[in-house]
Amino acid sequence: MAGTDRTKKSQMTLPEGGPAIILVTPQLGENIGSSARAMLNCGLADLRLVRPREGWPNDYATKAASGADAVLNGARLYGSTRDAIADLNRVFATTARPRDLVKRVVGPRTAAAEMRAAVGRGERIGVLFGAERMGLHNDDVTLADTIVEVPLNPAFSSLNLAQAVLLVCYEWLQAGGVLAPRDGLMPTGVSRPATREEVVGFYEHLESELDACGFLKPPEKRPAMIRNIRNIFQRAGLTDQEVRTLRGIVTGLCHWRANGIKRRPDEY
Amino acid sequence: MAGTDRTKKSQMTLPEGGPAIILVTPQLGENIGSSARAMLNCGLADLRLVRPREGWPNDYATKAASGADAVLNGARLYGSTRDAIADLNRVFATTARPRDLVKRVVGPRTAAAEMRAAVGRGERIGVLFGAERMGLHNDDVTLADTIVEVPLNPAFSSLNLAQAVLLVCYEWLQAGGVLAPRDGLMPTGVSRPATREEVVGFYEHLESELDACGFLKPPEKRPAMIRNIRNIFQRAGLTDQEVRTLRGIVTGLCHWRANGIKRRPDEY
Repeated sequence: MAGTDRTKKSQMTLPEGGPAIILVTPQLGENIGSSARAMLNCGLADLRLVRPREGWPNDYATKAASGADAVLNGARLYGSTRDAIADLNRVFATTARPRDLVKRVVGPRTAAAEMRAAVGRGERIGVLFGAERMGLHNDDVTLADTIVEVPLNPAFSSLNLAQAVLLVCYEWLQAGGVLAPRDGLMPTGVSRPATREEVVGFYEHLESELDACGFLKPPEKRPAMIRNIRNIFQRAGLTDQEVRTLRGIVTGLCHWRANGIKRRPDEY
Repeated sequence: MAGTDRTKKSQMTLPEGGPAIILVTPQLGENIGSSARAMLNCGLADLRLVRPREGWPNDYATKAASGADAVLNGARLYGSTRDAIADLNRVFATTARPRDLVKRVVGPRTAAAEMRAAVGRGERIGVLFGAERMGLHNDDVTLADTIVEVPLNPAFSSLNLAQAVLLVCYEWLQAGGVLAPRDGLMPTGVSRPATREEVVGFYEHLESELDACGFLKPPEKRPAMIRNIRNIFQRAGLTDQEVRTLRGIVTGLCHWRANGIKRRPDEY
């Protein structure tokens, strides 16, 4: 999806204290780059790499990051998971398959709420992700406080590494309510929602023309027909511009009829 | 993340009537394959392609699908968006950048709830995704009832195509509550949570040894020390096996002390 607004670069404020994303022995540079992109999509920047298989830096990672260079360039390299999480107060471990470990399991949404709460208390937190093929080693999961398990299709639950990173980062961002979703918004651009006077004016214009051409017959059905027609347009939530457009359409159609072929609409 | 349980293949029931995922003029086979994988991760299978740039079928798609071949092989090809959505009753269009269109906008979570409701009423639904570089053309967005906008970092909101597909499919799956997340579960494997008798038996064992070695002094501090020590282990939510392990540790340490160097623990 295209859509980065480059004019907003200056407004870009990465939330302080968001979770560190720790990729343990990742195999493919592409996945590291895609993870960096997903992190920045969600306003996170603390990327840590434990012994990436293909070495570091990695051209495939840069290509897949698609501009999230700041995250890649800031990535820190570690020789062990232990070192990568040394400064953290709370660690989550992502797993797809159940582990033979007695450790609390949560979904990504609950994990995100808990991360927000922990950060609110001033804790430093991180999330461990394992290698593409096998996921995290149990030795690494053991170092975490909580397991994050994404509830997916049990017959096909193997998520791509960068997809797993995205889901965790996405839930983190949503849990913050920092960026209010525009849920239910009807953007009207340079227009504005039409006033009721404008809307009803259009209805009356349309109905007078429909009366003139004999469409609203028989008379006993006229009130119900008008209600049904008005309701169609009412549902559209018209803007002032759209009301003008519709009035133009009615005028245009009537003008065409007046100057051309004489057919009643119900003959169409 | 590794983790598909192949023994569950036979239990795999793709939800009927889930949204069709419609990729309009996708550029890269990899993204088509990754989208198919994300769909199957979330139990969706109806993939539709409008004029894929690199033709179809596509080897890169197969590689990136990582086993989601059933989705790829079932993908249907269309010459236009209009044809691809012809059988649908309700269409959502994903966009990253705001459009100059008067059309209701929702986030993916609200969209998923609305999709579930629509499917519950017997409607057939679909979600349009545009090409990697520019997203959907406004002509295609116009054909949709509702815009889905993912609230992301405004300075870097360009999601990879397959990442966008994943988020929509993930929210669809979560909205269904089909797969209860194991939120808050503490799996204990073949063990079981220890009984209070077992736990307190361990505490008393430990405390008797601590009394013997002179650790619980001075006497007026003993009750608080015991509370603090008990509380450490209480928080761990021990299993029966773990209680046995801890008792073995205490016995082992005491035995070592009894047979070896005579130091009091507070001298360490």
